[in-house]
Amino acid sequence: MNIQSSHAGQQAYDTLRQRFARMGQIRNALGILGWDKDTMMPVGASDSRAESIATLAVLSHELMTAPDMAELLDRAQPPADAMAQANLHEMRRQHAHAAAVPGELVDAASRAASRCEMAWRTARQNSDFASLLPQLQAVLSCTREIAAAKAEALGLSPYDALLDQYDAGTRQADIDPVFAELARELPDLIASALAHQDSLPPPRAPSGPFGVGAQEKLGTETMAAMGFDMQRGRLDVSLHPFCGGAEDDVRITTRYVEDDCLNALMGIVHETGHALYEQGLPRAWRAQPVGEARGMSLHESQSLLMEMQICRSRPFMDWMAPRLRAAFDGTADDGAWDAANLHRLMTRVRPGFIRVDADEITYPAHILVRYEMETALIAGTMKLSDLPDAFNARIHDLLGLTVTEDRLGCLQDIHWPSGSWGYFPTYTLGAIIAAQLREAAERDTPDMMAAIGRGDFSPLLGWLRPRIHARGSGASTIDIVRDATGAAPNTGPYLRHLRQRYCA
Amino acid sequence: MNIQSSHAGQQAYDTLRQRFARMGQIRNALGILGWDKDTMMPVGASDSRAESIATLAVLSHELMTAPDMAELLDRAQPPADAMAQANLHEMRRQHAHAAAVPGELVDAASRAASRCEMAWRTARQNSDFASLLPQLQAVLSCTREIAAAKAEALGLSPYDALLDQYDAGTRQADIDPVFAELARELPDLIASALAHQDSLPPPRAPSGPFGVGAQEKLGTETMAAMGFDMQRGRLDVSLHPFCGGAEDDVRITTRYVEDDCLNALMGIVHETGHALYEQGLPRAWRAQPVGEARGMSLHESQSLLMEMQICRSRPFMDWMAPRLRAAFDGTADDGAWDAANLHRLMTRVRPGFIRVDADEITYPAHILVRYEMETALIAGTMKLSDLPDAFNARIHDLLGLTVTEDRLGCLQDIHWPSGSWGYFPTYTLGAIIAAQLREAAERDTPDMMAAIGRGDFSPLLGWLRPRIHARGSGASTIDIVRDATGAAPNTGPYLRHLRQRYCA
Repeated sequence: MNIQSSHAGQQAYDTLRQRFARMGQIRNALGILGWDKDTMMPVGASDSRAESIATLAVLSHELMTAPDMAELLDRAQPPADAMAQANLHEMRRQHAHAAAVPGELVDAASRAASRCEMAWRTARQNSDFASLLPQLQAVLSCTREIAAAKAEALGLSPYDALLDQYDAGTRQADIDPVFAELARELPDLIASALAHQDSLPPPRAPSGPFGVGAQEKLGTETMAAMGFDMQRGRLDVSLHPFCGGAEDDVRITTRYVEDDCLNALMGIVHETGHALYEQGLPRAWRAQPVGEARGMSLHESQSLLMEMQICRSRPFMDWMAPRLRAAFDGTADDGAWDAANLHRLMTRVRPGFIRVDADEITYPAHILVRYEMETALIAGTMKLSDLPDAFNARIHDLLGLTVTEDRLGCLQDIHWPSGSWGYFPTYTLGAIIAAQLREAAERDTPDMMAAIGRGDFSPLLGWLRPRIHARGSGASTIDIVRDATGAAPNTGPYLRHLRQRYCA
Repeated sequence: MNIQSSHAGQQAYDTLRQRFARMGQIRNALGILGWDKDTMMPVGASDSRAESIATLAVLSHELMTAPDMAELLDRAQPPADAMAQANLHEMRRQHAHAAAVPGELVDAASRAASRCEMAWRTARQNSDFASLLPQLQAVLSCTREIAAAKAEALGLSPYDALLDQYDAGTRQADIDPVFAELARELPDLIASALAHQDSLPPPRAPSGPFGVGAQEKLGTETMAAMGFDMQRGRLDVSLHPFCGGAEDDVRITTRYVEDDCLNALMGIVHETGHALYEQGLPRAWRAQPVGEARGMSLHESQSLLMEMQICRSRPFMDWMAPRLRAAFDGTADDGAWDAANLHRLMTRVRPGFIRVDADEITYPAHILVRYEMETALIAGTMKLSDLPDAFNARIHDLLGLTVTEDRLGCLQDIHWPSGSWGYFPTYTLGAIIAAQLREAAERDTPDMMAAIGRGDFSPLLGWLRPRIHARGSGASTIDIVRDATGAAPNTGPYLRHLRQRYCA
């Protein structure tokens, strides 16, 4: 490289930085508009808001696919440091995803998804898969076209190209052996968890009602204890809990149930896990691709680490039980407010049809079924009309349940109608990684769970910050996990955790 | 015109419609981001939010000043209907404003204003005009450069070019005679209002505290009675009340004072006036220039019509007094809850230094002084260093008050430090137009005020909707007022109103 070309390469990189910063700011704006839509927006504004959001998305897409982007990305030479190099790598990856798909296909897919989502709400209510089939087929066809276009551009298989949208660098070949092992282990594991549960005293639910004000106060205090920075975020209410917002403005939501004092709290600690990740991203790289969260598997690992590994643990409950009792003036002397009881209550196993209501140990069964279905549908080795029977058969294999209505089966989730194919496996990858991170964190900081027992999250957060959060998108999910724990994502810690919590 | 050119002209107009719709959607997004900043945003997000807002503003400005815009605007041939023609006219006007100012000057002005606003907060606190002078001079210089650039592009005087930003088509030559008459009339009018007030029993303020929940409930009910569509808007809390949001999503705010049951309510009815205008804009022209509110004078006329003309009237108080008493469980039997007393309380005259705290009759004096000052400063016939003395002298002439500290004088407003020169006269033009609209509405619908006495706003709103709201930016402020009332904006109805309310 001569001085001349190096200078031009730096200039190209600087131009790219500015353009991606613009896209980052549009993403921030979209984050707030999306949060507002689900928390504040009056109903009459929904069409107008959809237009605003679509306009910003198109502006961002146009910036990404500007005619000179490919050349700039080719020519760009970032500084020698690893994050700058990774930043360019992420720019190229994001550009490749966006540029691979012709505008008309993006548009057709978005329209097909909108139509299908609408039809899905009715079809689910009526358990009527046949009525949804044409719309869902249209979404699947568009998705397969997108997958094929991205596959060619990225040199991946179609399903891997979809998966790469949600979890950069993770491939079907990484997932298959992991999920195959889970499929082998799960039925026995669940059976033995149920048997073990039967040997314990049944948990008692504290009786309410539990005032929303007190629930919110306890939730906010818990967020603060976990390390959530209230100067750079909020807690609000929405129909479905989520973590959204923008940089320096991470907003989580929950939903308060008046006769259950743990439901909203567990939602809050889950979303706080997502939020701590966002708040811990490298600030020097704000609004740049490398400054973004790595992907959905790692994101879910953070929420599940906090919810499942930490806050459904006995040490956390030892700390939380007296706080719950005090928050709700719990006077009952029937043991309902005891930590041991509350811990049993929060780790109860009950196989059921609905994924989002599933407990920790049966949840992966729901994911395995969806993963098997969507990989076959994208590969074209299964017909969409065969989905209900295939889905129900596998639910029976793994959970022993007979699906009698499709609203309790393959019609329950919005992911497929809305075009989010390749997303499902990230839930269980996240659960696996969460267990692995907790094992590694305890190995490195042996007093970590004892600190949790005192409501002190700082050893855990201190371990996570540099190893996960501050890495942003500086490496692939697999490499970040390997660097943090010494091993690529694997089922060992997860199965150990499930056996220890549910079968011992 | 031949078929060929007509077709190209239609195409150009369609292209423009699409581009302005994009800008309209960006404006909607900015409306929500701005509302959120002042109501919801955590403090730590302010830098990030400023970046997002600036990015969207730049994107919109780039759309407006794209290289082919001038040619498209030249070539465009809209359909023959009046609104489409007016739409193209507004497109041209908006483009002329944006294209007149070089990007570097926009940038310099924006930076000068940011620095000056910061310095102003300290200078105001310390009543230290000298310390602000350099920064304010920088803002004034940038503003004069912008005014000169726009003046040349628009064929207007520099001050008219600034004024046109806030009130399209209104000129200094329209304002001067109106304000001169007010300057002549006001001192005597205020003196006679004070003398009349002394002849009445002093009003009693109902004693609080007045719960925020009850205030909010009453405010919401009042908004609904006035015709505010809660499906397309919200009421929230902010430090300074405002009306913002987006199309189909008009959001007003207020601030609750616990020891005053009328303060927040009057803020709410004022902002509801703004909101009704926004909610009544022509829906067929959403996100197009002609579908926007006409300007700040007409906007202020709508808030002041509702607040001053209607809700501080005796008929409104006849309806509201028992509602207030019921809302706050008013048991005092000292006459504080009587409509006559509450009406006197809400029309009390007390000359003071602070514009935003001024009553209806002394408010215009504050505006006249600022208008005289800013026209002279923009014209260059006064030096900025002479501002405090000149300002204070005119306050003394019009209100008989001696300003001893500049924080009570020329340092009190954010408008000049923030670069909003040419804005002040719209407040009093709005007050004048409000009186004129009320006279015309009563002439056309004689039972209008009797209906207000029953809490029925429908005759008033039915009169306003087609004459003001639905016209959008279809004509100039002056023409809209003339069409609605039969006369251009003039002081007759305003002075009659003030004399009748305060001197009779």
